[in-house]
Amino acid sequence: MRTDSAVFRQLGIIGCGLMGGSFALAMRRAGLVRKVVGYSKSPSTTEQARALGVIDVAAPSALQAVTGSDIVLLSVPVAATEATLKAISHAVDPAVLYMDVGSTKADVVMAARRALGPKIGSFVPAHPIAGKEVSGVHNAEATLYDGAPVILTPLRETDPQMVARATELWTRLGAKVLTLEPEAHDTSFAAVSHLPHLLAFAYFSAVAGQPGGDDFMALAGPGFRDFTRIAGGDPEMWRDVLLANADAVLEQSALFRTHLDALEFALRSRNADALHNLIRSASEGRRNWRQRSTK
Amino acid sequence: MRTDSAVFRQLGIIGCGLMGGSFALAMRRAGLVRKVVGYSKSPSTTEQARALGVIDVAAPSALQAVTGSDIVLLSVPVAATEATLKAISHAVDPAVLYMDVGSTKADVVMAARRALGPKIGSFVPAHPIAGKEVSGVHNAEATLYDGAPVILTPLRETDPQMVARATELWTRLGAKVLTLEPEAHDTSFAAVSHLPHLLAFAYFSAVAGQPGGDDFMALAGPGFRDFTRIAGGDPEMWRDVLLANADAVLEQSALFRTHLDALEFALRSRNADALHNLIRSASEGRRNWRQRSTK
Repeated sequence: MRTDSAVFRQLGIIGCGLMGGSFALAMRRAGLVRKVVGYSKSPSTTEQARALGVIDVAAPSALQAVTGSDIVLLSVPVAATEATLKAISHAVDPAVLYMDVGSTKADVVMAARRALGPKIGSFVPAHPIAGKEVSGVHNAEATLYDGAPVILTPLRETDPQMVARATELWTRLGAKVLTLEPEAHDTSFAAVSHLPHLLAFAYFSAVAGQPGGDDFMALAGPGFRDFTRIAGGDPEMWRDVLLANADAVLEQSALFRTHLDALEFALRSRNADALHNLIRSASEGRRNWRQRSTK
Repeated sequence: MRTDSAVFRQLGIIGCGLMGGSFALAMRRAGLVRKVVGYSKSPSTTEQARALGVIDVAAPSALQAVTGSDIVLLSVPVAATEATLKAISHAVDPAVLYMDVGSTKADVVMAARRALGPKIGSFVPAHPIAGKEVSGVHNAEATLYDGAPVILTPLRETDPQMVARATELWTRLGAKVLTLEPEAHDTSFAAVSHLPHLLAFAYFSAVAGQPGGDDFMALAGPGFRDFTRIAGGDPEMWRDVLLANADAVLEQSALFRTHLDALEFALRSRNADALHNLIRSASEGRRNWRQRSTK
């Protein structure tokens, strides 16, 4: 029986939430790991992850989750990346694969440079495009990444072998691996993810905060439900993501406002043809859009 | 065998699209109608509806779809309501139930007053909160209204017996019937439906219209998919709905902009606490919102 080089001995999870917990379950289901050690800032979360069988061993510190692991996943809010990597930096081993799951990448790369210095070669920044509007390890699912795109943003210094291992393991979890520069990643996601969240937060607050808002919302249908789904996102996570990518998000928001201006102008001036053209262009574009993968 | 008073002899459909076609299928499936006569402006649509078995008889005019019918459904773009009612006005019978399915109600009521004058008593303005981002009779479904809220906006002059018949039949199709004033209806839907469409059109155009937009959208995930779903709405229908309710929509959009301003200000000034509070308020509100019915 040959040894499968893709199988890891021990996975260390730092941050036992939805993303980290789902990764542990997926790795185990795929037979890619023998043992999972987990750590969360809150001991009750770590204990819950253990009780649910998501991790085998509850580690009392990030450093202890890393000790003995040949693969480590950071699944903490992006703003906590630097402190987390600093806490484990002296144990970082060039033969161990380190990844994160953050929704922004330029700030994660900067944090990793500051925390790891020359040891950055075995850190492969990763962003799986998966998630749910519920968080917590009790919502973790072994299939969360199945069919999902995963974007890797390796650096000049990243060990190509580590990129290959990361690519292989995500592929074996059913994910579609893509590679981008960190800055290109952040510009893209400002447009297709971070701005929609900002707009959904603003829109939901506007409706809910007005007199009669609750009555209005009692009448809302499937369009409202889908349009506002992302407004239920985790406040801490989204605060950090928006702050980490603020300039690109504000730029996208300014662009959005010019298109809203044009629609409002057509509406205010009762210009049916102009309004029709603007709507038709959006509608045709949306009908032609196809998701890369249907998770 | 007793005669079921809710069963109609003949349904006349004016506008054999998604909404009208689904109503015909639903009525037939529920055993509430014996014969369906349909008319669409385009003869090929009427013929398609007949070929699909959605209607039994293809009428060559709106007037002929109405002749002999004891229930009539108008499912035409709201801007066509007045002309359609005028075309049938001299055949309007106080013993026949007339309804529309328009997404705005104040303009439909005004159109009905102009077209029907004193014969308005048997017209019950209706808005079923159901639909799909595809249109056309080939997408019609017998279950479209099952579980959907249907809002009736009867007038002072509306015959209470007609309101009772409308309520009974929608209830038997599985819908949940609510009653509102036309103006209250339009204010509510400006907030929970029309503005989200305007925002989704603006957002989609902003993303798709920029350099690299296609590449960005190739990376988009389920959040983008759901947030932009309504941007695929029918351009003519949404042009008419937005124009018919322009003032209320513009008022809601102004309110939305004040909330977007606040979020952008917190983001621009890197005020993490303010940003967190704004997001948390939206997120908690959204998590507590429950759809009236889950169609």
